[in-house]
Amino acid sequence: MLGFNEPEFLAQTASAVALRPHIEALADRLADDGLDALLLVGAGGTYAQMWPYEHLARRLSGLDVRAAIAAELVVSGDRALSSGGRTAAVFTSVSGTTDDSIRAIEYCKAAGAHTVGFTGQADSPVARLVDEAFLTEPKTWPFDVQMLYLMGRLLERRGEFAGYGKLADELAGIPQVLLEVARQAEPMAAAFAEAHKETDYYFLVGGGNLWGFTYLYSMCILEEMQWLRTTRVHSAEFFHGSLELLEPDTSVLVFQGEDETRPLTDRAEAFAKRISRDVTVFDTRDYPLEGVSPEFRGLLAPLVLDTVMGRVSKHLERVRGHSLELRRYYRVMDY
Amino acid sequence: MLGFNEPEFLAQTASAVALRPHIEALADRLADDGLDALLLVGAGGTYAQMWPYEHLARRLSGLDVRAAIAAELVVSGDRALSSGGRTAAVFTSVSGTTDDSIRAIEYCKAAGAHTVGFTGQADSPVARLVDEAFLTEPKTWPFDVQMLYLMGRLLERRGEFAGYGKLADELAGIPQVLLEVARQAEPMAAAFAEAHKETDYYFLVGGGNLWGFTYLYSMCILEEMQWLRTTRVHSAEFFHGSLELLEPDTSVLVFQGEDETRPLTDRAEAFAKRISRDVTVFDTRDYPLEGVSPEFRGLLAPLVLDTVMGRVSKHLERVRGHSLELRRYYRVMDY
Repeated sequence: MLGFNEPEFLAQTASAVALRPHIEALADRLADDGLDALLLVGAGGTYAQMWPYEHLARRLSGLDVRAAIAAELVVSGDRALSSGGRTAAVFTSVSGTTDDSIRAIEYCKAAGAHTVGFTGQADSPVARLVDEAFLTEPKTWPFDVQMLYLMGRLLERRGEFAGYGKLADELAGIPQVLLEVARQAEPMAAAFAEAHKETDYYFLVGGGNLWGFTYLYSMCILEEMQWLRTTRVHSAEFFHGSLELLEPDTSVLVFQGEDETRPLTDRAEAFAKRISRDVTVFDTRDYPLEGVSPEFRGLLAPLVLDTVMGRVSKHLERVRGHSLELRRYYRVMDY
Repeated sequence: MLGFNEPEFLAQTASAVALRPHIEALADRLADDGLDALLLVGAGGTYAQMWPYEHLARRLSGLDVRAAIAAELVVSGDRALSSGGRTAAVFTSVSGTTDDSIRAIEYCKAAGAHTVGFTGQADSPVARLVDEAFLTEPKTWPFDVQMLYLMGRLLERRGEFAGYGKLADELAGIPQVLLEVARQAEPMAAAFAEAHKETDYYFLVGGGNLWGFTYLYSMCILEEMQWLRTTRVHSAEFFHGSLELLEPDTSVLVFQGEDETRPLTDRAEAFAKRISRDVTVFDTRDYPLEGVSPEFRGLLAPLVLDTVMGRVSKHLERVRGHSLELRRYYRVMDY
C-alpha cells in the first residue's frame, strides 16, 4: 500500500488496544468516586474526534458529557468546571504539543477537574501536564479505541451499556481488522484519486457518529492538507441549505456508517445522485470487519472510515503532487 | 432602505417583545414543576438559532440544555427523552410547516416531553401540534427575543442569571434599536455588495454566541439563497485547518460580537488580514444600541448581526440579480 507502514500501523493500533486495563481502571475510579460531568476537549481534528462520544452519551447516558473546543473553553468557561461538581476532562494529542490543548489542560486543572491525556509522546507537555497520561506508540491516530474503552466502561458501570465487555474483547482484534480495511480500500482509493486529480471543490455529507469525521476530513485533510475548497454538512441538515449548491459536476463525498442515522444519510445520498454525476459513497458496510459483532459495527464507523480515507488521502497526495505535510501558515507563521 | 418594510419590521419585533409575560409564565411553570432537561430543536436556520442558548446554558447553568437537529433527534433519540425525567422541547418555525420539525414535535410529544412552539403562523402544523404555541406577527425572524425571555427567566429562577429582569426591560426598546441598526448598516451593506458582485467564494469566521449565526449565514443565506460556495469555521478552530485556504484574494467575513470569546475572533481576524486583502469585519461594537446596558451587548449579538447581515443579503440580491427566494431543489423537487 502506498505510504503505508504495516508493522508500524499494527504496532500503533496494538498499543492503543493494550491500554484497555489501564483505561478501564480509570473509568472504574471515576465511577467509584462519582462523576458529575465529563469534558472531551480538543482542537481541530482532536475536537472532531470527540463528537461521536458526546453523541453516544446523549443517546444512552444520564452522564453530562460535553465535547469542547480547547481555545473556547479557556475563555468561555463551563458550568461543569465552576459548579463544584466532580468533572473529568479528557484530552488527546498526537504531538502532545498543541498550544490550545496545553492551555485548556492548565485551565481545567486550575478549576479542579481531573485531567486525562491520550498521546503517543511521553515527554510532551500534554503527557506531563495531565493528571494521568495513557501512552501509545508515537503518532498513533485516531483515538477511538481509547475513547471506546473509556466511554464504554463508564456507561457500563452506570448500567447504560450492557454489551461493553463483548465490545472490548472484540477490539483486541482491531489492528488486523483495520489493516484488512486499508488493504481492501487501497484500489478504490487509488481509482478515486486518479478520477479526482483536477477536482478543486468537494461537498461532504455525513451524520450520526460520522459527523465529526466529516468535519475532520473536510477541514483537517482537504482544506488544511490539500488546500482544497470544501463545504461540509450534516446529513440531517442537508436539505436545509447546502443542497442548493449541487450541480451536475459537483464532487460529493458521502460518509456512511451503520448506526440509526443511516436513513438520513441515505436520503441525502439519493438526492445528491439525482443532481450530480460525481457522488462517491464511502460506506463502512462495504468492509467485512471480521470478528466484529453486527451490533458494534455502527460504533466502529469513525475508526473504519478514518482508515479508508487515510488511503484516499495518500493517493490524493500522490496524484496532486501536494504533500499532506505541507503547511503555509500553521506552525510556520507566528500568530 | 432597500426591500425593507419599516412598519412591518417594527410590528414583527414588537410582537415578539409582547410575548414577554406569556413566555415568563411558561418559564415559571417549568421551573415550578421541576425541569430536568431542555431540548432546543430546529432544522437549518432554526437549529443554528438555538446554539447561542445552549452556549449560554453551558457557561451559566446546571440545567441540561441541548440544541438538537430535528431530523436526527427522531432517528437517534435522546436520553433526555427516554430517562423518565421532565423534559421540555422548544421549536421555532417561520412557516410553521417544516417537515423535520413537525416529525420531531410528534416524536417529543410521544416521549412525554412538554412541547413549546414559536411561530408567526397560527394555523400552521407547528402551532397546532405543540402543547403551547407563542404567536407573533407572520414572518417574524429571528427568534432571539423569545429565546432570551425563556432562557433568561429560567436561569433567573434557578439563581443563575441575576440580571434577567433588567435585560427583559431593555428588550422592550429592541424594535427601535434594531431599526436604527438596519439604518446604520444600510450604506455599508450597499458598498459591501457592490464590491463583492463577482465574489464566488466566501470564508466565514465567527465564535461564541455568533457561531450559530456564522453557520446560518454561510449555509442558509450564501449557499441556499445565493448559490455561492463558502466555508465556515469557528474562530476557536480557525488555526486548526481552514486557515490554510487563505489567499490574498480570499473574501473573508468575520462576525464579531462582544462576549468573552471576542479575543479568539480578534486573533483569527488579525491573521486573516495578514494574508487576505479582502477581510470584512461585521462587528456589533459598531452599533450604539441605545438603551442597552454594556453587560447585555454580548447577549444581543446574534440579533444585531442578523439585522446587519439582512441588509447585506438584500444588497447582494440586488447586485447579483439573484433572488433570495429562488430555490432549485428545496420544496421544488420531491425527496
